[in-house]
Amino acid sequence: MVQRWVRFNEGGVVRFGTLEGNQIRVCRGDMFDKPEPTDMTVKLGDVRLLTPTQPSKIIAMWNNFRALGEKLNLATPAEPLYLIKAPNSYLNPHETIRKPSCDGKVVFEGELGIVIGKTCKEVSEEYAMNYVFGYTCANDVTVADILNRDPSFAQWVRAKGFDTFCPFGPVVATGLDPAMLVVKTVLNGEIRQDYPINDMLFSVRQLVSMISRDMTLNPGDIILCGTSVGVGSMKPGSTVEVEIDGIGKLSNRFQ
Amino acid sequence: MVQRWVRFNEGGVVRFGTLEGNQIRVCRGDMFDKPEPTDMTVKLGDVRLLTPTQPSKIIAMWNNFRALGEKLNLATPAEPLYLIKAPNSYLNPHETIRKPSCDGKVVFEGELGIVIGKTCKEVSEEYAMNYVFGYTCANDVTVADILNRDPSFAQWVRAKGFDTFCPFGPVVATGLDPAMLVVKTVLNGEIRQDYPINDMLFSVRQLVSMISRDMTLNPGDIILCGTSVGVGSMKPGSTVEVEIDGIGKLSNRFQ
Repeated sequence: MVQRWVRFNEGGVVRFGTLEGNQIRVCRGDMFDKPEPTDMTVKLGDVRLLTPTQPSKIIAMWNNFRALGEKLNLATPAEPLYLIKAPNSYLNPHETIRKPSCDGKVVFEGELGIVIGKTCKEVSEEYAMNYVFGYTCANDVTVADILNRDPSFAQWVRAKGFDTFCPFGPVVATGLDPAMLVVKTVLNGEIRQDYPINDMLFSVRQLVSMISRDMTLNPGDIILCGTSVGVGSMKPGSTVEVEIDGIGKLSNRFQ
Repeated sequence: MVQRWVRFNEGGVVRFGTLEGNQIRVCRGDMFDKPEPTDMTVKLGDVRLLTPTQPSKIIAMWNNFRALGEKLNLATPAEPLYLIKAPNSYLNPHETIRKPSCDGKVVFEGELGIVIGKTCKEVSEEYAMNYVFGYTCANDVTVADILNRDPSFAQWVRAKGFDTFCPFGPVVATGLDPAMLVVKTVLNGEIRQDYPINDMLFSVRQLVSMISRDMTLNPGDIILCGTSVGVGSMKPGSTVEVEIDGIGKLSNRFQ
């Protein structure tokens, strides 16, 4: 059964729960360790949604989709290539992505996020899915012009690490088969990205297994699967939505 | 007046305080916001020292020392070039740096860490020092062979992000002039690095100001200033010490 988990602030109190139509079934305990539903429900419209988890790290893949690799004429990587999104970049659903004070084109990258559910170190591919809690929508916002302007050092972390540059949510959906998912990114009402997750070079299972050999993954940590074709720049005043059927729609303004 | 701040675990309780010879003056409150000394002292030998702060992020500079840039024939960068150390890499003083399961040469990099004391966003150089709490010793451990083995993507975050690859501490020293500091790295009793902080391309003041334009810096966050000449590989069984006069000595085994 698919469940959709949210974290929210209701009158100054932070709680979590599962979606039931337009309501949230409030839960207590730990989202990742035997959460208990309570008798309480709150209306979705009465709360402020927060990032659905509080990751100790968000790992973001580069060049993980065949279609984009072919378009950019990239070599197929022998191993997952990734960076880390700075924690100051995390942004709640519905909040505003801020244009940094620096110049340069700001681009959206709609992505699937894998949410880790259990502490995970050096797990084999066979068991990797046991450590996945669910999936979320994310926007891996980037100042494209910064990436390669120093020829000696590619500035991935900086270009993708500005404040508000990593909105994710609004939910973590559990009980889904990630291979069936499709990521759509909509800019000001126009579909700009529309790509299937089964085009990934490294699957969910492989990503979790291979990255867990490098870094211990913790409950709530997120692996952004990378993006595919259709990335584009945003003008201030734009609204960008990352929508994955079965998960939900992440919507943020850019200003 | 120079003070040396530590965070420690005494019988399961985490506290912080300042060094007074072989004792710790226990403090209460917040290290960064009006900490209050108490009447209580504990012996340094009776506690387990922890990382002196709990950073939301550690930003690590590349190519920030003239001597190393000249040796490696690197262009002088126009702006600070940096990555983020994964939080799973943070390691307490005196704990063991673990060899990852992957192959490859593991190198030490002795570095000065700038510890942020106040939330800091887009601060000018003129005021940047008001946001610096103090300084610590760090070892920016790296699997050198991973860095450039994919020609399309330099794997800085991964090569430097393995579990236990960022020991720092044992103290944060406040009230020091960073321009006078000298970083020494000692491998198995032999001095391998011995370089002055005043050889930095971007000064402490410039680093804090320029990075704060990209990312909001939080109390406890650390900027690693980069390393200079003398970096080398460690064999399992080695002991590596990063010593900065006026701050202290960070000592870790590698196994």
